[in-house]
Amino acid sequence: MNSRDTLATELNVLADFNPVVPQAYKDASVVMLGNLHPIVQSSVLNQMTTQPKLVVLDTMNFWMDCALPELLEVIKRVDVITINDEEARQLSGEYSLVKAAAKIHTMGPKYVVIKKGEHGALIFHNKDVFFAPALPLEEVFDPTGAGDTFAGGFSGYIAQSENISFENMKNAIIHGSNLASFCVEKFGTERMVNLNKEDVYARLQQFKSLTQFDIKL
Amino acid sequence: MNSRDTLATELNVLADFNPVVPQAYKDASVVMLGNLHPIVQSSVLNQMTTQPKLVVLDTMNFWMDCALPELLEVIKRVDVITINDEEARQLSGEYSLVKAAAKIHTMGPKYVVIKKGEHGALIFHNKDVFFAPALPLEEVFDPTGAGDTFAGGFSGYIAQSENISFENMKNAIIHGSNLASFCVEKFGTERMVNLNKEDVYARLQQFKSLTQFDIKL
Repeated sequence: MNSRDTLATELNVLADFNPVVPQAYKDASVVMLGNLHPIVQSSVLNQMTTQPKLVVLDTMNFWMDCALPELLEVIKRVDVITINDEEARQLSGEYSLVKAAAKIHTMGPKYVVIKKGEHGALIFHNKDVFFAPALPLEEVFDPTGAGDTFAGGFSGYIAQSENISFENMKNAIIHGSNLASFCVEKFGTERMVNLNKEDVYARLQQFKSLTQFDIKL
Repeated sequence: MNSRDTLATELNVLADFNPVVPQAYKDASVVMLGNLHPIVQSSVLNQMTTQPKLVVLDTMNFWMDCALPELLEVIKRVDVITINDEEARQLSGEYSLVKAAAKIHTMGPKYVVIKKGEHGALIFHNKDVFFAPALPLEEVFDPTGAGDTFAGGFSGYIAQSENISFENMKNAIIHGSNLASFCVEKFGTERMVNLNKEDVYARLQQFKSLTQFDIKL
């Protein structure tokens, strides 16, 4: 069992966990549903008083195994789903990630983000696809929390830029990858709590150097 | 044994294989040494009458296992080495690809290309690194020849553009990845012999869409 499985099991045991959305957050324009029981995710959506402009959902194989009908119900209601490559294959029954994303589109989400850990992340929207690499690092101390950091960075970028276009989601996925690259450098939240804007901007520059080219067409 | 191993074994059996460089090629500015016994690779270099501007070498785990001293000799003489991620780890004894590339730099090559199959390719040059993704494909029929197509596309791009800067190598690695994405679509050389410039340009546009973003710093 990896750390995500352990977490999920613990959360499942907390069967009466029933988060209450504070009044001031009930009209949020961007809602990020963290990786919890799909019934909990649905209950958060039900508490929103206005329809969010964008709903992002993170989930995992554990819920596909033990709460698939409830998961499919909440997936119908979200705009963006973030899962890893193996989970995308499990959810869709397709090995090719291109085919998997196309099938997951039909389940509801217009945007399908597939995380590949050290191999980066893909975002699919109909026939469009964008890829954000993971930054090649000298050492990875602890990958725990990288997926959550990625999803939070993605959603936070969209929320602050107030732009839910696919072009801006490309930036958001780079921003999420950038933040996740810090998360894995130390144990727990140690690197994140000591992060400043200069660090983030400097590394965004590295992402640019890593991926931008100028081939003439 | 995979197809590369089979090929290597067959070539090793041909112990008297002794390629002769035609007179007209002896002053080539870009030389690509295909994945053969390192003694054969050295013999090709020895036949050049002028020092090439750029020598690219492809090799594999098989030669690391059975001809490491000869391999290290020829590696000293090349500018670019292309190997896959597992081979980079074997050659360097380092798991992190960043550390592996740094160690391989000290063996000779100023540029280290690490191929990660469906996960793309990295090129390292001192502290600089560039990443080319593999194009997400609906189906991969046959990966045989993808690495050779990549190395040929890379070297061909450098040769025709007559520019061996790191910036241009970024374009070359994209060009090689682009060609390799066609190679795997059909068996053997079938897709490559039917390829035209329009196909290549259209897919380069896909590589741009896949990787280019415009995040403000």
